[in-house]
Amino acid sequence: MAKVVCVLYDDPVDGYPTKYARDGLPKLDRYPGGQTLPTPKAIDFEPGVLLGSASGELGLRKFLESAGHSLVVTSDKDGPDSIFERELVDAEIVISQPFWPAYLTEERIAKASRLKLAITAGIGSDHVDLQAAMDRGITVAEVTYCNSISVSEHVVMMILGLVRNYIPSYQWVVKGGWNIADCVARSYDIEGMQIGTVGAGRIGSAVLRRLKPFDVKLHYTDRHRLPEAVEKELGVTFHQDPASMVGVCDVVTINAPLHPETENLFDETMIARMKRGAYLVNTARGKICNRDAIARALESGQLAGYAGDVWFPQPAPKDHPWRSMPHHGMTPHISGSSLSAQARYAAGTREILECWFEGRPIREEYLIVDGGKLAGAGAHSYSAGDATRGSEEAARFKARSDSR
Amino acid sequence: MAKVVCVLYDDPVDGYPTKYARDGLPKLDRYPGGQTLPTPKAIDFEPGVLLGSASGELGLRKFLESAGHSLVVTSDKDGPDSIFERELVDAEIVISQPFWPAYLTEERIAKASRLKLAITAGIGSDHVDLQAAMDRGITVAEVTYCNSISVSEHVVMMILGLVRNYIPSYQWVVKGGWNIADCVARSYDIEGMQIGTVGAGRIGSAVLRRLKPFDVKLHYTDRHRLPEAVEKELGVTFHQDPASMVGVCDVVTINAPLHPETENLFDETMIARMKRGAYLVNTARGKICNRDAIARALESGQLAGYAGDVWFPQPAPKDHPWRSMPHHGMTPHISGSSLSAQARYAAGTREILECWFEGRPIREEYLIVDGGKLAGAGAHSYSAGDATRGSEEAARFKARSDSR
Repeated sequence: MAKVVCVLYDDPVDGYPTKYARDGLPKLDRYPGGQTLPTPKAIDFEPGVLLGSASGELGLRKFLESAGHSLVVTSDKDGPDSIFERELVDAEIVISQPFWPAYLTEERIAKASRLKLAITAGIGSDHVDLQAAMDRGITVAEVTYCNSISVSEHVVMMILGLVRNYIPSYQWVVKGGWNIADCVARSYDIEGMQIGTVGAGRIGSAVLRRLKPFDVKLHYTDRHRLPEAVEKELGVTFHQDPASMVGVCDVVTINAPLHPETENLFDETMIARMKRGAYLVNTARGKICNRDAIARALESGQLAGYAGDVWFPQPAPKDHPWRSMPHHGMTPHISGSSLSAQARYAAGTREILECWFEGRPIREEYLIVDGGKLAGAGAHSYSAGDATRGSEEAARFKARSDSR
Repeated sequence: MAKVVCVLYDDPVDGYPTKYARDGLPKLDRYPGGQTLPTPKAIDFEPGVLLGSASGELGLRKFLESAGHSLVVTSDKDGPDSIFERELVDAEIVISQPFWPAYLTEERIAKASRLKLAITAGIGSDHVDLQAAMDRGITVAEVTYCNSISVSEHVVMMILGLVRNYIPSYQWVVKGGWNIADCVARSYDIEGMQIGTVGAGRIGSAVLRRLKPFDVKLHYTDRHRLPEAVEKELGVTFHQDPASMVGVCDVVTINAPLHPETENLFDETMIARMKRGAYLVNTARGKICNRDAIARALESGQLAGYAGDVWFPQPAPKDHPWRSMPHHGMTPHISGSSLSAQARYAAGTREILECWFEGRPIREEYLIVDGGKLAGAGAHSYSAGDATRGSEEAARFKARSDSR
């Protein structure tokens, strides 16, 4: 019987909603392109409720306990005295989320001698030291596609929000003003702009597809070139690398996984290659952008705006400069955790667990590391190595989170 | 020689930008569908600067004064002691904007005995009593299409913002929190939702076109049915009237002009026909929605969110309930006044003036009232009658605008 440790974000301050804003979720047939939605044998939750925070338990308790497994759920994930670090030592399975990542560093993996499976209830397993997982033969799996469309919607929303100056204009309403000139002095249409994505996988190409009817000029760079027919259909121009793309763009959106080759990609040098007054939207991973270079570029006006919902570490310390820099439109890491996405990643997590316990193969597209090497989606998207360095800083949020 | 009175919104509190966020604007070839952009013989401004507020003067002063005309520009538009009401008495031409409407009521038209031409630097001439203009033989013209795409972008932005719960999530960042559960307990994907537009003219159909790749189900109602080929291309379902459409929709967006038939269309009865937890986005005109019914529906949860940027009157009084109701994402009336749109409506206003002074016909598509009747775009979109009732309330903002 397995011990499962599940790290989920904190419950709502005011408790779970007694009534949700809406009744249920729209029913989807399958993902774009034909991949099937998660196929667990059953689910123990109602789609549309809050599953991703601690009391939601991803709807897994009954399923696990009735099969004799044990489940520990906690939000306490950072620092050597955290519940996660304590429970990890005899866990067989760890479940975590990108939004509230339980960093599995080399040191933690060394302590977790019984760990065999690390599931990301979401997409993006950079919070796991993949090299260490490969060396130890740990399987790493994620729920590929579960929230790709969610994130692509967030990206389009943030591009429009930055370019049109939405949030500052909303704030004039709340303050009681009618200061149109103050709102529009920084408001533009996206029509006619050059928009480029770093990464044209599921999210990036969904972003391109959604932007096409806005009559913008589309660009992309990726280590995998899109089929010619797709390039033509979207009217998108390929560039060899980010450095050669960003100079033509009014808006750049980052939709690439974090691995050693993308870490710190948008540093001072890359930002200097961009047009003055360009916008940057990063819903991929915080570490792809250099924290201080971004803040400086907004101060200087080199960037006209920055939005996204990924930070490093997570949760971001209260004094993280991205919370207070000018012209930002940040959210905490939520784009892939809409109630719609939660229903899918909870179901996908259960599907992976069912396969694991029954000795059936986990879907190829869910696998990141398996049998000591990058596998499935992992081989497509990641590089070997480790991107968890610096994660100990996450404990700073905890130490200061007195106001929560 | 003509006296021109131009009413424009207030200048920025901190003065005009010495440097704009961006350098220039993307160059557009023509509007979607083929209508040409404004074609004045020349312009006296740099596209991309703030033209729409008082000091910007729509870039018209040199043009008018060098031809011997006089130009009065003011923001002071409401109440009997306003500069507008004083200058109106001997004006031949009045230029106003929807964002900061100089209400031309029957009473004011009666006082303006020399008034021959009322230009809307934007789209939507409901701030003019069209019946009174017809009776007096005043020509009413607007810059059709100048900001239709701007507004359509705003609509998509606001739909995404409401459904994904953007602004409240941003606010958690600024407050220093990492309260994911609080953010996502009201966050959904639009994927799979039923989205309907009331009105499928230039703006409404641009909204439909932009929403299509989001894999939503599209609906519309309009007194003019779209060509079958367009319905098919967009995959959009026609409904006879708003009452029969709203019940199937998760999101309703209003993109119809204000005239006596659309005034107060979204009242308590219409809102009760909507699904519980639907979203309503109105960038058309404030008076199409019943002010108090909207606020009550947000309080009760019948509506999950309301956004838009149109109010009545404008500016909205500081105690207007839409400033403080829950789950709103309002902006002041800015969607059609991005710097991109300003360049087009300033050029279009100049085009109309050039035609007027040279005795050339004003473009058919710009005309609302001409020769004593609804004409051109007006005959397509408006009903005879008056939608200015209640505009005297706008003076309440002025009387209280001590904090500006």
